[in-house]
Amino acid sequence: MGQIEPKMKLFALNANVDLAEKIAKEVGLSLGKASVKQFSDGEIQVNIDESIRGSEVYVIQSISDPINDSLMELLIMVDALRRASASQINVVIPYYGYSRQDRKARSREPITAKLIANLLEDDQVTRVLTLDLHAPQIQGFFDVPVDHLAASPLLASYFTDHNFDPENMVVVSPDHASVSRARTLAEKLGTPIAIIDNRNVESSESLNEIPTEIIGGVKGKVAIVIDDMIDTGTRITISAQALKNAGAVKVYGAATHAIFSRKAPEILQNSLLEKVIVTDSIRIGEEKKFDKLVELSVGPLIGNAIEMIHNNEPLAPLFRSQSK
Amino acid sequence: MGQIEPKMKLFALNANVDLAEKIAKEVGLSLGKASVKQFSDGEIQVNIDESIRGSEVYVIQSISDPINDSLMELLIMVDALRRASASQINVVIPYYGYSRQDRKARSREPITAKLIANLLEDDQVTRVLTLDLHAPQIQGFFDVPVDHLAASPLLASYFTDHNFDPENMVVVSPDHASVSRARTLAEKLGTPIAIIDNRNVESSESLNEIPTEIIGGVKGKVAIVIDDMIDTGTRITISAQALKNAGAVKVYGAATHAIFSRKAPEILQNSLLEKVIVTDSIRIGEEKKFDKLVELSVGPLIGNAIEMIHNNEPLAPLFRSQSK
Amino acid sequence: MGQIEPKMKLFALNANVDLAEKIAKEVGLSLGKASVKQFSDGEIQVNIDESIRGSEVYVIQSISDPINDSLMELLIMVDALRRASASQINVVIPYYGYSRQDRKARSREPITAKLIANLLEDDQVTRVLTLDLHAPQIQGFFDVPVDHLAASPLLASYFTDHNFDPENMVVVSPDHASVSRARTLAEKLGTPIAIIDNRNVESSESLNEIPTEIIGGVKGKVAIVIDDMIDTGTRITISAQALKNAGAVKVYGAATHAIFSRKAPEILQNSLLEKVIVTDSIRIGEEKKFDKLVELSVGPLIGNAIEMIHNNEPLAPLFRSQSK
Amino acid sequence: MGQIEPKMKLFALNANVDLAEKIAKEVGLSLGKASVKQFSDGEIQVNIDESIRGSEVYVIQSISDPINDSLMELLIMVDALRRASASQINVVIPYYGYSRQDRKARSREPITAKLIANLLEDDQVTRVLTLDLHAPQIQGFFDVPVDHLAASPLLASYFTDHNFDPENMVVVSPDHASVSRARTLAEKLGTPIAIIDNRNVESSESLNEIPTEIIGGVKGKVAIVIDDMIDTGTRITISAQALKNAGAVKVYGAATHAIFSRKAPEILQNSLLEKVIVTDSIRIGEEKKFDKLVELSVGPLIGNAIEMIHNNEPLAPLFRSQSK
Amino acid sequence: MGQIEPKMKLFALNANVDLAEKIAKEVGLSLGKASVKQFSDGEIQVNIDESIRGSEVYVIQSISDPINDSLMELLIMVDALRRASASQINVVIPYYGYSRQDRKARSREPITAKLIANLLEDDQVTRVLTLDLHAPQIQGFFDVPVDHLAASPLLASYFTDHNFDPENMVVVSPDHASVSRARTLAEKLGTPIAIIDNRNVESSESLNEIPTEIIGGVKGKVAIVIDDMIDTGTRITISAQALKNAGAVKVYGAATHAIFSRKAPEILQNSLLEKVIVTDSIRIGEEKKFDKLVELSVGPLIGNAIEMIHNNEPLAPLFRSQSK
Amino acid sequence: MGQIEPKMKLFALNANVDLAEKIAKEVGLSLGKASVKQFSDGEIQVNIDESIRGSEVYVIQSISDPINDSLMELLIMVDALRRASASQINVVIPYYGYSRQDRKARSREPITAKLIANLLEDDQVTRVLTLDLHAPQIQGFFDVPVDHLAASPLLASYFTDHNFDPENMVVVSPDHASVSRARTLAEKLGTPIAIIDNRNVESSESLNEIPTEIIGGVKGKVAIVIDDMIDTGTRITISAQALKNAGAVKVYGAATHAIFSRKAPEILQNSLLEKVIVTDSIRIGEEKKFDKLVELSVGPLIGNAIEMIHNNEPLAPLFRSQSK
Repeated sequence: MGQIEPKMKLFALNANVDLAEKIAKEVGLSLGKASVKQFSDGEIQVNIDESIRGSEVYVIQSISDPINDSLMELLIMVDALRRASASQINVVIPYYGYSRQDRKARSREPITAKLIANLLEDDQVTRVLTLDLHAPQIQGFFDVPVDHLAASPLLASYFTDHNFDPENMVVVSPDHASVSRARTLAEKLGTPIAIIDNRNVESSESLNEIPTEIIGGVKGKVAIVIDDMIDTGTRITISAQALKNAGAVKVYGAATHAIFSRKAPEILQNSLLEKVIVTDSIRIGEEKKFDKLVELSVGPLIGNAIEMIHNNEPLAPLFRSQSK
Repeated sequence: MGQIEPKMKLFALNANVDLAEKIAKEVGLSLGKASVKQFSDGEIQVNIDESIRGSEVYVIQSISDPINDSLMELLIMVDALRRASASQINVVIPYYGYSRQDRKARSREPITAKLIANLLEDDQVTRVLTLDLHAPQIQGFFDVPVDHLAASPLLASYFTDHNFDPENMVVVSPDHASVSRARTLAEKLGTPIAIIDNRNVESSESLNEIPTEIIGGVKGKVAIVIDDMIDTGTRITISAQALKNAGAVKVYGAATHAIFSRKAPEILQNSLLEKVIVTDSIRIGEEKKFDKLVELSVGPLIGNAIEMIHNNEPLAPLFRSQSK
Repeated sequence: MGQIEPKMKLFALNANVDLAEKIAKEVGLSLGKASVKQFSDGEIQVNIDESIRGSEVYVIQSISDPINDSLMELLIMVDALRRASASQINVVIPYYGYSRQDRKARSREPITAKLIANLLEDDQVTRVLTLDLHAPQIQGFFDVPVDHLAASPLLASYFTDHNFDPENMVVVSPDHASVSRARTLAEKLGTPIAIIDNRNVESSESLNEIPTEIIGGVKGKVAIVIDDMIDTGTRITISAQALKNAGAVKVYGAATHAIFSRKAPEILQNSLLEKVIVTDSIRIGEEKKFDKLVELSVGPLIGNAIEMIHNNEPLAPLFRSQSK
Repeated sequence: MGQIEPKMKLFALNANVDLAEKIAKEVGLSLGKASVKQFSDGEIQVNIDESIRGSEVYVIQSISDPINDSLMELLIMVDALRRASASQINVVIPYYGYSRQDRKARSREPITAKLIANLLEDDQVTRVLTLDLHAPQIQGFFDVPVDHLAASPLLASYFTDHNFDPENMVVVSPDHASVSRARTLAEKLGTPIAIIDNRNVESSESLNEIPTEIIGGVKGKVAIVIDDMIDTGTRITISAQALKNAGAVKVYGAATHAIFSRKAPEILQNSLLEKVIVTDSIRIGEEKKFDKLVELSVGPLIGNAIEMIHNNEPLAPLFRSQSK
Repeated sequence: MGQIEPKMKLFALNANVDLAEKIAKEVGLSLGKASVKQFSDGEIQVNIDESIRGSEVYVIQSISDPINDSLMELLIMVDALRRASASQINVVIPYYGYSRQDRKARSREPITAKLIANLLEDDQVTRVLTLDLHAPQIQGFFDVPVDHLAASPLLASYFTDHNFDPENMVVVSPDHASVSRARTLAEKLGTPIAIIDNRNVESSESLNEIPTEIIGGVKGKVAIVIDDMIDTGTRITISAQALKNAGAVKVYGAATHAIFSRKAPEILQNSLLEKVIVTDSIRIGEEKKFDKLVELSVGPLIGNAIEMIHNNEPLAPLFRSQSK
Repeated sequence: MGQIEPKMKLFALNANVDLAEKIAKEVGLSLGKASVKQFSDGEIQVNIDESIRGSEVYVIQSISDPINDSLMELLIMVDALRRASASQINVVIPYYGYSRQDRKARSREPITAKLIANLLEDDQVTRVLTLDLHAPQIQGFFDVPVDHLAASPLLASYFTDHNFDPENMVVVSPDHASVSRARTLAEKLGTPIAIIDNRNVESSESLNEIPTEIIGGVKGKVAIVIDDMIDTGTRITISAQALKNAGAVKVYGAATHAIFSRKAPEILQNSLLEKVIVTDSIRIGEEKKFDKLVELSVGPLIGNAIEMIHNNEPLAPLFRSQSK
């Protein structure tokens, strides 16, 4: 008797159903039949309603708010898939939550981003496909293959598609820990960079104090503040204020992951920012949308990546131009 | 240079602060300085505010609603303790959530109770101290030592302390899967048992249909329905109705774990039950308390167990009489 | 160069050669060439006489008396297969020995059923295919896939095929720990259940004391005592006596696993039981057969399951009707 | 609260009770209260009748005939000790069975000696204390510490204590795989060596063909045939015949491990050997004793080793003189 | 019998003998007797010449050039210590080599810094004590405790001890990936920061092109270029040139790890730098010393850390002032 | 979507480029595009210049001088391949360095051959293909499949191809630990064996003392001294001298692995040996070649083995005749 061919299947959990639909469309498959719900006591129940025995499975789930529920949905789904004899369990994590807890900054701190990696590896995932990790070293928290996509070509495409003039632009890092990210975007756009000398990186989210020192020239320029994520929105808002104070003519905000916690939408709408360009790596509910928001989809990017993984093709081409 | 003595420390996370205080009092220690809070995006932050290097640590946390947050608090705390060089990390889990997902009852189901065990072992806990697991086989989900306490002596003590007459009593199992638990309590009280022939064990929580078949004699008796946990309260409520229909003169409910989800307090208060006797393994908020509720504390039981573990003494004596 | 197709191979070790032949016939393959013998000092020697490099292998072996030899045969065979580059090592364990040691019932007890699971997983088996585990939670002792078959449809088929009348029947659990098993069979037959209130579950095998309390009605009925295994035969024999004392007109015994240790065949033949219906999950030697014995083969059930696993088809249909 | 001191405890399983008593006497402790018995279906039951929580435990058990039962006794005991919170589980294995299956000599062979090591490590033993492994590389099958004792000083002491004259002696290896062992003994006795050119090392146990080629001079000498174990006795018996044929005046047999399977005692007593000098690493039942047998006890050697391990002293001195 | 106290022992391997002597002096112990040499075929031989059974061992070894030999010395030493029953194996790695390979920057790259962590964990080290990792996320590559020391207070002390005037100083990051490091030193010295906008971070070591864009003001200031390591010396040399071109009055170089590969000493001596301040985390041979070099010892820092670890005291105080 | 076929790829690292070319030719493939170089500080950089996603990869690398660099090249390459999603990583190790450190011969020694095995397994290699391990037990250091080839048919072929007369030959073991190896070659050639009674096996490499005792007859014979490896050449040289002293007419040396450290080529050329027959398992640089050297290639043997592994065919036929 010969070998049986594995089938390819995509499943969406609760965090990214819309994005998962876009990914599935790109791949040319329907999403698998499965549901994840919570009992009245908070326990998660997974139901997989079609056979996945021997299948090459992709599970799409951001680790986003409600973050611990999202994570447990994923871990429980993987447990169910493994016990049901999936041949491959690829987890697609557009937003990898807890990624800022990636080192011990003070005594007795956890490294939760590593803990998440351990939990996924112990659950025996085959591969992780993710996007713009807070620190690229998080790839090394895993021993299984991690395919790490970048949204910077997509974000850059917004500015090139809208005919911004590189001569008049500057890409700005909101603090000293994020300069490399600004450098990468600046490279794609052909602009210089500047840095906001924000002394208190860790707690800037909760502060309203506007930093006054900016390293590098922004006067008379259109400034793009780039970050990997926008959480409460405070940091990018005070960055915009600081840049305007320093003479920038317009300020745009750009980020891959739109956490938008607390009153972020309101704060951002009321800020000095012209536009806030983000992706759909985290689902943005209707109640969180606002006029200045520009939402770009990473569905085609992730869909392409899944196809290439399935076909054993290198992902490198994806890192070049997604903008056109 | 000689060896340094490890110190013993107790920490409480958010699920059981009151119980942890009782345990600490029994042990004769203060709770360690630590706090666990959530950021606005839902991420959990652990702060341990005293040195635990080389210490024998006990962390007290039920895996109860909000269940996934409780679990992640525990896992993150253990990660922090391990990285901070605790010599022993004993986790005290008065209520082990997800314990009903302990086997594959249908195709493609997870075994979440095993997943939890794996997560804890991978996080390198030294020992688990827990209470009335849904199935005793869950001990075998672990390879580290599990010290498994029983609340049945405590629950039995309520009836002996209130001078119930064993001659007129019967202990009732609400379904066929729980008969052994009823047998154990009946043994301590010196009474016979009966069983409610509830055909649909799994979904009884959500049904209002009152089972009509009772195996064993209850007519004219004071019946005690015993379960390991009360979740929505439906099962024990319809059991009470069924027992009354069958001629029981009074019905008491008893259980170790008071989940009390959805409208359980209201349902229980309005039921035919005389009293609902439970423990504080899960914190019962003021808004969930009701007149018929009797709450017994497992603080002394767990505190004694911790002392015995610390002193390398056998726990067997705890299994005999906690009632006096 | 393209990929080479793995071949499917079945091997029988010493515990179940006859059953293995039946399974192989169902699958449509011959058993692979291998032998397992013991040296004069008791050491087991495995010889695999055909290449299995890259093959999908199924090894059939119950962990039955001589139980430790059977287990070691299996572990050594798996070691040999792994080192010889089998691509999959599926172990088929019709009877999973030591399954009653599945929890710590007293201080300082082992959990041997978990130890066995650990030994198999450490030996890197791909999958376990087994039948009627003593407790379904034993599935959770594994992290590899466990396909867990049920013999209840097969046992039920005996009664339906022989035109028993559900109206006059009752399915009886020999103690309170086995009520769910009785419930399942009763469901298939459409009968009520009863329970023998045997106070001393653990040691009942060695007692001759006949339990007097029966919960539920058996008077005037044909009673079927259902258990997962018959070991010394004492429990089922005294159950029959108790049921007759309580007015049952006829008593049948049914069980999946026929351990038949010590004088079980003699005891059973001389008991009040009409028939003893079991399966061939454990080989029953000629010297152990007796007139009242009815032996049903699980060969077709297991053979079908192997085919479905090989073809990546769901096993769920097997759980419905094996009787016709 | 300060740290609690662990206690030291010794336990004997069924394979070496007499030797265990000698070891305990040397250490100055009584054997711990525990029993291991078999149920009628062959399952092993372990009972540990005293608390070992936090203790430094030594379990004494040879992996000898009934070899699989002995191994399972050990594995189950270790499981019970670990779950009961022993702080250290040192396994003392005077005879490490299956040690001849230490490599793949043919295709598709297992490496059972490694499998045993894996099983013990997976069961989480702290340390292995053993004696004269068939190949010293077996130490490397473990990652936990292995303290490997040698009986050669003890065996040599027999000849020096009985005033044998090194000038007239030769130490003989019964095949080419064992020459180093002969070299070691010869070194201690100050004699030359010879080798029996036995072409078929693997199967010599079952052959009666007497090898005719002896490499090295034995004529007119007292020959000592040294081996690590005597199994059926055939090899050492035909070696004696060969040596006599080649002119040896007297032949002694010496070995650490007295397996004595099949008719070994009878064969050895009827052989041309003067004496057969062995140790009690494997229990020699009364029915296996014979006139030519000389049994030396490794009790003091192992007892001393345990004391040194307990006291954190180096074992090296034990490798020098055990003879006086 | 009571428990035996473990002893504390320090061993130096070949990479840092001088530093190890300084550490040992701080701790108040002599270095343990051990030697590591190479056979003529390159194999490393470890000899430990004193008993370490039960000891709390600290092994001091940088993973520095010859980097693979240094790593293997460490791994082999740990293997030997573990097999010889050390109770704790703490590895002290002043310079953690391969730390720049901490992420996949391009397709099919290894993450060698994680590989090293895996090798050490698989070898079962108890703890890692290290200094100024290239990225703090490397702590998360480990699951064992990592105590991560910082040399910045020591480097800062050079400038405060020599009465530099913060008003006239600026701390400069040589590229955008190292801005946080500059920020930390600037904080300690009370100065602003600047950044050299070096576009090609990865390959700057081998380029002679002098970057022209400097973000932030350096004109008329004393500039300190801070990096974690100086490898070929090219980057810091061209940074000095760039700063001078931009009007800095004096330029100092500072770094924790002095790799000094190729012609680094000559290049640095001939550069525009006033002084090059480094630590002895990597041994600097006499042939590599040069006039402008200032070498500060991390011996007291590491020695203190070891004492605190041994005494179960928190290391936090070490992070405050090492300068006095 | 159906399954994608994995591709087969061969890569050579720095230790055996020539041999790898021969292997690739035998297999009928070109070597994959990859390079491994060292930075100026000694760190190894791996570049894989073609996609290997989903491929069945064979990496060819002896662990030979510079031994630690060779090993790290291999480990880093495997890390890169695994992270890049190779489906199989087969490591082909013609010479397994450190294999003489395969047991603890003295207190506190490492077992480095096991450490190497652990490092490879932890790096998740799929399979090891190797040649003439120093001890066959080293196979058991692995749990992954080890395919262990033998060069003895190839070495034997030299003598049969050159029409040596078995009647006049003797195969000689240079010490007592290598007698089995001599026995195997003698079997193939149909000759007797002899043994050099070299008392100090371990240190003989560094001694110039010529052993005088030879066990077995060599007078008037053509002697072949067989060893697994020739390191400094001293042992085989003094063996030749001893054999000549004892009357051998000609002496040939044969070994699988030509380490040739220090002045081995000079010593061997100037020895009493007629020829030194070795394989290319270790690359022999031009500067190490000498007139008496005969180098046979294991390329066809290894190439055939790879083909059989790829085709899931048994390797057994390779163990029979490679000579014709």
